[in-house]
Amino acid sequence: MSDFTMTATVARPFPEAVDRVRGALAEQGFGIISEIDLSATLKAKLGVEVPQQLILGACRPELAHQALVADPSIAAMLPCNVVVRALDEESSAVEAFDPAFMADLGGDAVRVVAEDAGQRIRAALASLDEG
Amino acid sequence: MSDFTMTATVARPFPEAVDRVRGALAEQGFGIISEIDLSATLKAKLGVEVPQQLILGACRPELAHQALVADPSIAAMLPCNVVVRALDEESSAVEAFDPAFMADLGGDAVRVVAEDAGQRIRAALASLDEG
Repeated sequence: MSDFTMTATVARPFPEAVDRVRGALAEQGFGIISEIDLSATLKAKLGVEVPQQLILGACRPELAHQALVADPSIAAMLPCNVVVRALDEESSAVEAFDPAFMADLGGDAVRVVAEDAGQRIRAALASLDEG
Repeated sequence: MSDFTMTATVARPFPEAVDRVRGALAEQGFGIISEIDLSATLKAKLGVEVPQQLILGACRPELAHQALVADPSIAAMLPCNVVVRALDEESSAVEAFDPAFMADLGGDAVRVVAEDAGQRIRAALASLDEG
């Protein structure tokens, strides 16, 4: 947990937690437009072990488009990353980049969009949280 | 161009610029671990037209691992996005998220890694810039 993320704990093993996160984001209108198996990548490239984790790139197209029209540079902060990480055999952590930081970096029009995205991601995390 | 990005202009059409960006990042030790065709996504989902653009997720595994060890929350800011965008038929813009913002959000150990990543991406952009 950090200042720049929003978090939830899911009392489910990793693969099941990933499915639940996808479902919770879909309910808030977010599609997953990128997917990075970070633990597998680091294992393959460096031979190191980190907790099993997946970076899901969540995008609500309407919001992405509004943000881009307001400030094309926002593309460099898209999509909104939602990380699912195994805590142990039974539970998983979910950690999403807080779009409030896009609001801080962009202008007022970006702020409106970032607040909308933040509320939706917060709602998705709240629906998952069992920690 | 914005406060939170580093930019370059490449005097090449979009597809050729994408190849050059991949090459310049590879020379600095970055692999591309995600790739999002943002313009195609928005066209497919919303029917809107934005300039042709691709979000490349650049990752130097050693740096990603050091950053994660220092602060696991950094996963929510990985990989480092490098956006290639068509300006016109003849030229393209490259815009990378500045890892300095990871340094601002993370602690001192993250700062060292973010500075390393920032210097490498800056060097990649400098090798491309013809604008």
